[in-house]
Amino acid sequence: VTTQATQSDRLHPDRLFPVDPHVRDLARELYRHVAGLPLVSVHGHVEAELLAADRPFRDPSDLFVVKDHYVTRVLHSIGIPLDQLRPEADPRGVWRLFCEHWHAFRGTSTRIWLEDELTSLFGVPLPLDAIPADTSYDLIAGRLREDAYRPRALFGRFGLELLSTTDAPGSSYAPHEALRDAGLNVVPTLRPDRLTDPMRPDWEEALDAAGVTSYAGLVAYLRDERQRTVAQGAVATDHGHTWPDTEDLGEGEAGRLFDRIRRERAGPEDRRRLGAQLLTANALLALEDGLVMQLHSGVQRDHDRPSAARFGPDLGADFPLPVTFVRPLRALLERCGNEPGLRFVVFTVDETSYSRELAPMASYWPALYLGAPWWFLDAPDSMARHFSAVAESAGYAKLTGFVDDTRAFCSIPSRHDVARRTIASHLATSVAEHRLSLDEARAVAEAYAYGQPRAVYGVGSRR
Amino acid sequence: VTTQATQSDRLHPDRLFPVDPHVRDLARELYRHVAGLPLVSVHGHVEAELLAADRPFRDPSDLFVVKDHYVTRVLHSIGIPLDQLRPEADPRGVWRLFCEHWHAFRGTSTRIWLEDELTSLFGVPLPLDAIPADTSYDLIAGRLREDAYRPRALFGRFGLELLSTTDAPGSSYAPHEALRDAGLNVVPTLRPDRLTDPMRPDWEEALDAAGVTSYAGLVAYLRDERQRTVAQGAVATDHGHTWPDTEDLGEGEAGRLFDRIRRERAGPEDRRRLGAQLLTANALLALEDGLVMQLHSGVQRDHDRPSAARFGPDLGADFPLPVTFVRPLRALLERCGNEPGLRFVVFTVDETSYSRELAPMASYWPALYLGAPWWFLDAPDSMARHFSAVAESAGYAKLTGFVDDTRAFCSIPSRHDVARRTIASHLATSVAEHRLSLDEARAVAEAYAYGQPRAVYGVGSRR
Amino acid sequence: VTTQATQSDRLHPDRLFPVDPHVRDLARELYRHVAGLPLVSVHGHVEAELLAADRPFRDPSDLFVVKDHYVTRVLHSIGIPLDQLRPEADPRGVWRLFCEHWHAFRGTSTRIWLEDELTSLFGVPLPLDAIPADTSYDLIAGRLREDAYRPRALFGRFGLELLSTTDAPGSSYAPHEALRDAGLNVVPTLRPDRLTDPMRPDWEEALDAAGVTSYAGLVAYLRDERQRTVAQGAVATDHGHTWPDTEDLGEGEAGRLFDRIRRERAGPEDRRRLGAQLLTANALLALEDGLVMQLHSGVQRDHDRPSAARFGPDLGADFPLPVTFVRPLRALLERCGNEPGLRFVVFTVDETSYSRELAPMASYWPALYLGAPWWFLDAPDSMARHFSAVAESAGYAKLTGFVDDTRAFCSIPSRHDVARRTIASHLATSVAEHRLSLDEARAVAEAYAYGQPRAVYGVGSRR
Repeated sequence: VTTQATQSDRLHPDRLFPVDPHVRDLARELYRHVAGLPLVSVHGHVEAELLAADRPFRDPSDLFVVKDHYVTRVLHSIGIPLDQLRPEADPRGVWRLFCEHWHAFRGTSTRIWLEDELTSLFGVPLPLDAIPADTSYDLIAGRLREDAYRPRALFGRFGLELLSTTDAPGSSYAPHEALRDAGLNVVPTLRPDRLTDPMRPDWEEALDAAGVTSYAGLVAYLRDERQRTVAQGAVATDHGHTWPDTEDLGEGEAGRLFDRIRRERAGPEDRRRLGAQLLTANALLALEDGLVMQLHSGVQRDHDRPSAARFGPDLGADFPLPVTFVRPLRALLERCGNEPGLRFVVFTVDETSYSRELAPMASYWPALYLGAPWWFLDAPDSMARHFSAVAESAGYAKLTGFVDDTRAFCSIPSRHDVARRTIASHLATSVAEHRLSLDEARAVAEAYAYGQPRAVYGVGSRR
Repeated sequence: VTTQATQSDRLHPDRLFPVDPHVRDLARELYRHVAGLPLVSVHGHVEAELLAADRPFRDPSDLFVVKDHYVTRVLHSIGIPLDQLRPEADPRGVWRLFCEHWHAFRGTSTRIWLEDELTSLFGVPLPLDAIPADTSYDLIAGRLREDAYRPRALFGRFGLELLSTTDAPGSSYAPHEALRDAGLNVVPTLRPDRLTDPMRPDWEEALDAAGVTSYAGLVAYLRDERQRTVAQGAVATDHGHTWPDTEDLGEGEAGRLFDRIRRERAGPEDRRRLGAQLLTANALLALEDGLVMQLHSGVQRDHDRPSAARFGPDLGADFPLPVTFVRPLRALLERCGNEPGLRFVVFTVDETSYSRELAPMASYWPALYLGAPWWFLDAPDSMARHFSAVAESAGYAKLTGFVDDTRAFCSIPSRHDVARRTIASHLATSVAEHRLSLDEARAVAEAYAYGQPRAVYGVGSRR
Repeated sequence: VTTQATQSDRLHPDRLFPVDPHVRDLARELYRHVAGLPLVSVHGHVEAELLAADRPFRDPSDLFVVKDHYVTRVLHSIGIPLDQLRPEADPRGVWRLFCEHWHAFRGTSTRIWLEDELTSLFGVPLPLDAIPADTSYDLIAGRLREDAYRPRALFGRFGLELLSTTDAPGSSYAPHEALRDAGLNVVPTLRPDRLTDPMRPDWEEALDAAGVTSYAGLVAYLRDERQRTVAQGAVATDHGHTWPDTEDLGEGEAGRLFDRIRRERAGPEDRRRLGAQLLTANALLALEDGLVMQLHSGVQRDHDRPSAARFGPDLGADFPLPVTFVRPLRALLERCGNEPGLRFVVFTVDETSYSRELAPMASYWPALYLGAPWWFLDAPDSMARHFSAVAESAGYAKLTGFVDDTRAFCSIPSRHDVARRTIASHLATSVAEHRLSLDEARAVAEAYAYGQPRAVYGVGSRR
């Protein structure tokens, strides 16, 4: 009987592979083929300033716990008050809580990533609660003082070919410029939600800050902001409207709608319509400038308002909603879904839309691509369900390949590794069931891990 | 080639385990670890009176067919009229119909439980249609006349540490008291729906019966009724509103809403709001008295009204509805979801809410727990999908562990056995994929089977 | 390491079977038991005229690409303009595009069928892009000139016991008659949507064409049209309303509703209600004439209106919608769901309804049957999920067994073969997990593949 290594500082090389010995052999072979490919990180929330400043990470708690709501949410859910997990809290105290409740992460994808980071980056023995918390804290803290553990050094060690950030309109791209001058390919991604989603409470304020007073002015402002990111090597924009509604209004109607809302003579339905129109407006701008358009919708964010009022946003109180795409995306897709120049990538955290809607839609519309399993679904079983749900109607050609999405810098290689193990496992089963030849499986694995995100997002192919 | 035993009076010891030999070994080991643990039955519909009276079960048909709508619904669906399956029908005739159509249960979880009950309790050879119906009838009927097959004797034989009943407001708990005096831990569970769900046609009648004339009066009445169950050792209340809507109105507004509905000046939306408010009111009462709050929503009950009018409720014409929890539960959770004293357990028969909503929510809110797969989902494949859908984002710490839910007394041990086999199989795969060590898997299996329901429902820890 | 044959003209005999050696043995045995059974094709879109005329198929592109939107949609989705895939396009050019982009079909069920058709029918070596496109084109074109490859010859070679077509009201059944005279059992299926779905833009036109001026007249017309198909050996009708709404209005109310809509004094809600009523009216007619009633709802068809305007319908721009059945079907089922004479078969392309609604409903209502996985779900993994989702609550007795649904004549045997492999694989696992004996699994496999569709659709049992 095999057991996972206890008190070990390395993980089992066969982790996450299928259990049948023959299929496991195939998975190992496919994984070997892709394990060492560079990482293309076309979407994420690491801040360019972190790399530009290149200061040592503050401490183990800051690095692994406090700033990662994947971690704090789980600790909070088992009864640890949020104020004990904040940046103001004593780092050693946070770390002790984390180690003491390590068992709460059993079964989670967060634990799979953390195990990889803790062992392969820091040599911490596992399980994390097998040695005193202060011992692992000191071990990691010691490493963090070394030059090899500063952000830029890790960027190189991770094999990152490109890292995308997320940037509000009006952002400075000086950190990105400095990084590119230093040879690190860090590019911005415009996320204009505060200007394009009139349902947000800060919409009017954002318009005022941008000096925008009309629909045409807003589109012009967006065009300029997009161009500013293009000049910085950007490959995409990102859109996080709660619902994927789109409209295709004429310029005149859109302008009148905008004016009506600004004069406060409009209700929520008008605001929803204008947001829907602005998604289509961005798709049309994407046809001009070639940026990929990413849509991350279907999430109710900051859903615990009392805690958000006390501690701010991004506490992990973000919950998926049931979402449908067919009718909401119709206006945008009928307008430009057949345009070969557009690449429109849809992400979902509602698995039901995979086989029902997104796979059928992506395997019809040339412009539509299906993003990798996102957020709660960025996990081995969830990814396996994704492949099973979409491949039979859409194949692999309209998937973006793996796209990570995190503010936890050190988790990026671990997330790619899990994705590579998972696609290898999926394809190994396909080979064993004689659906694909091993050569085809190799090609699909390589595309999913590296080639397809580069191709869809145009990495390396821009001026 | 292995085949299931034909004409056998015992089941295969490896049933429901994974097929890979190595993983099956792991599953066997994990199952052995939990198979003999006591049964904690914190939710169910067996009547205390059955045990208090301790009369022999009437006959095989009454025990296995007539009173179990899991069985009658399937027989009805293949064309047997309901009147042939009622308590008034000839028991031997019912039993013959049951045996004759045994094949209709192939693949169902009901059959898995029945096979276990028929063989391990009664020594009936399988398949049930392999011997004459009268022979199996006589065999079972003979046993039922023995003292060892009377309800209390079976209670002991089943290893039941606690059995919860379901009780309407105003119920007498004399049977519970008598049973506890006799050393059987049978506790009530208040189900106040008829008072708390103004959408029900009998709501006004229930208020009148309770002498309730105001919102404050209703809350006071509920407080008292809850206390009556606490005094009887209760661990929880149960709430079966069709939708999981909650509101958090002030006392004044709730009072006015109640009065408006009682004066018949309110429409269905007002009734829905008052029901939603009363869920939150129960959560606040739970903070006072420490009872776990269970929510079983998302089911359209007694959906065949012509048959219900003829034969009464609980015919099996109960069908799940698509359900979403995020926005409906917001009011209750924002009010008291961060309270460590509350344990709020949500059950669902809509699998889509597992990965989309309930796992993300339970792994954020301290008060929220995710109930075991319920009703149609209390089955091996469904449970396996459940574990796969929830563990990657929520782990195992916020699951209640296994909770059975039945009015078929003899199915309780079989249901727990299937759940123990299924969690063992799930964890065996996790060990084989190097996600968990065997020691961790043992701990999770034991918690799921026994420790976690005891802890969440506070069994054994009350005054 | 096993790889799929490259440059082979036969497929692996174990394709799609489970990977565990013992379970694969069981699957092989179960598959052998059903592989050679005749094909009962109770639903489909091949035209009777194709067989009646019995002309050679035009060319390989016409046969495999141009007329099959499963194929053209995928090619379109990767950037090939629709006008290059139309009947007017050069067949050799189409074939070259198809072969060149063969990789886009990796992982799809379409490829599984095509591989089978190309090798077993035409002896084309695989993968399709391994030899020059002109070579495979010539090979197939040569065969198509042989008598053995004309439609009627293939009908015999396929082992088709019955083939159902889809027919609008008012259709001529002369081709069906001619075929039956020639010994080919080809029967019509009335699809009266254009008369029964007032949401359709051509509804008024269809009523005028039929000379219908009242609700009673419409029901009488439908009764006659149904009788015309009964006289032709029909086994079913088919209904493709977007939503599964049903109503049970009195004759008077239905009549007034019809009149109101015809006088253009009614809105969309009235149109929806009349369509809902007409489904129940068809169920009542089915009780009279014994035809199975099939419902295919939940699809947004021809969703790319600009392309539909240019090229016509059926381009593959058909996308499933989230659908719920419980409340919408209530009126019809309360009216006649307990009638043993009705067989009402519901299909879905929203997998979420399997375990949540359709399995619980089909295992209660005698008249309700659950159709085989449809359209995008007619694929091995999707079918496996279906069996897993429905069997535990509904067993196998209320499934229709496999029902194909295609306008691609040559794909019919391949679709049945995939279904037979998939049910064999599912049941092999059930046997290995000791849920079913091998004898029972054989019986279920045979029923699913052949016996159950014959029984449910009454094939061979009509006057």
